[in-house]
Amino acid sequence: MRDAQQIIDTAHEMADAARAAILPLFRNAALVTDNKRPADFDPVTEADRAAEIAMREVLARRRPQDGIVGEEFGSTPGDSGLTWILDPIDGTRAFLCGSPSWGVLIGLSDGQAIRYGIIDQPYTRERFEGGLGRARLIGPDGERPLIARSGVALPAAILMTTFPEIGSTQEAQAFRRVVDSVRLTRYGLDCYAYALLALGQIDLVIEAGLQAYDIAGPMAVVEAAGGIVSNWQGGPATEGGQVIAAASADLHRQALRLLNG
Amino acid sequence: MRDAQQIIDTAHEMADAARAAILPLFRNAALVTDNKRPADFDPVTEADRAAEIAMREVLARRRPQDGIVGEEFGSTPGDSGLTWILDPIDGTRAFLCGSPSWGVLIGLSDGQAIRYGIIDQPYTRERFEGGLGRARLIGPDGERPLIARSGVALPAAILMTTFPEIGSTQEAQAFRRVVDSVRLTRYGLDCYAYALLALGQIDLVIEAGLQAYDIAGPMAVVEAAGGIVSNWQGGPATEGGQVIAAASADLHRQALRLLNG
Repeated sequence: MRDAQQIIDTAHEMADAARAAILPLFRNAALVTDNKRPADFDPVTEADRAAEIAMREVLARRRPQDGIVGEEFGSTPGDSGLTWILDPIDGTRAFLCGSPSWGVLIGLSDGQAIRYGIIDQPYTRERFEGGLGRARLIGPDGERPLIARSGVALPAAILMTTFPEIGSTQEAQAFRRVVDSVRLTRYGLDCYAYALLALGQIDLVIEAGLQAYDIAGPMAVVEAAGGIVSNWQGGPATEGGQVIAAASADLHRQALRLLNG
Repeated sequence: MRDAQQIIDTAHEMADAARAAILPLFRNAALVTDNKRPADFDPVTEADRAAEIAMREVLARRRPQDGIVGEEFGSTPGDSGLTWILDPIDGTRAFLCGSPSWGVLIGLSDGQAIRYGIIDQPYTRERFEGGLGRARLIGPDGERPLIARSGVALPAAILMTTFPEIGSTQEAQAFRRVVDSVRLTRYGLDCYAYALLALGQIDLVIEAGLQAYDIAGPMAVVEAAGGIVSNWQGGPATEGGQVIAAASADLHRQALRLLNG
């Protein structure tokens, strides 16, 4: 891709700006009880908006020609053929609880596919990036490559999802068939689950009811690590909805069969 | 308590030793696939044992007169009247998944009550300590006091537990009554849930089937932050079993009523 390095630099500057906007609002009880603020002051909403504004400012300065789709402020058209897909805080409930499994999601689409993405966890200072030749975790302990693990059979696999009450009744039944076939199922990690899959720690993430901005960044990271992301029918997951991420093609095929069984 | 400062220093040295023993084994895929290791090599078990051995070495050197109860190596009697209660890795499943919600738990009992405790998260470098005049989080961003929040009514409360499939059928029904009365329920955080309660981020933690070493450290931290820990009948939780932690006396009373309703 043309300008790949400048695109990557821009994405990191956006993630830095989002971190700076969000962290003062995370685990800040004083803000909620501050009398000078309105009674309905909500630090998560505040942080969500501040972070998207901060990322849009970076784009306006560095790449005004690109389009933007943001969770908070909708669509801004561009004319470069590239669109940034932003979820300033994925996992607002985790944020509310003080649990560091929420993340800032950045994805870059060229209209055909997601070409690059970031999952950033500001509190743990972990940044997972994938695409344009990169697949790495940059964290407080330095860098390490992201490599999804292979060779794990379904009965030995670890599955993650955000809510045990996943989707509709039919979706919950399909999901339950996978739960009953794997070694371990864990809940509640939001976008951090995709990061753990890219790190080679877990094998499957299955969710329903996602938005496009929930999956763009994670998809780039997982695919760059060698994993597979699709919808439950095996087609593109770029629009969100029912999403499955698998560490290997074998697991992906087996889990799809169960979801559609 | 006599020797309070020396006790606190010893506990921190134990937590430091546990961190050093565990961190090389966390998220280390190379260890699992290393051919020179036995086929059943399990990094979690290895880390669990190494950390308890490291903590016992500190105690043997600094406080040989104290008793020890450890998850991995059982009971070692003492004659000081003080007993250290150790869970080197609480949340082995989270550890296995690479999720930083496991912790090193250290509690100190004087035979009547838990007087001091630590919840340490080595990867995020967060150490929550409570008792002997202390209630604080020491983390990469410095120190902050631990203060459980008050004034949150049950319908606005946030509840956490480790497994959605909590305990027996009867226990699950009791738990479900609380779930149906609160604003938000989150799963999967192990000991980190107690740390978030002490931080003033969440309001209730309810679990069943705990061991004494699962709750000693968290109990000291929560109580030092002003929270309440008991069993589901309102009695002492020091032996584990059915445990409830609440941020305030009001919430504790209301949740107990639901659990026993």
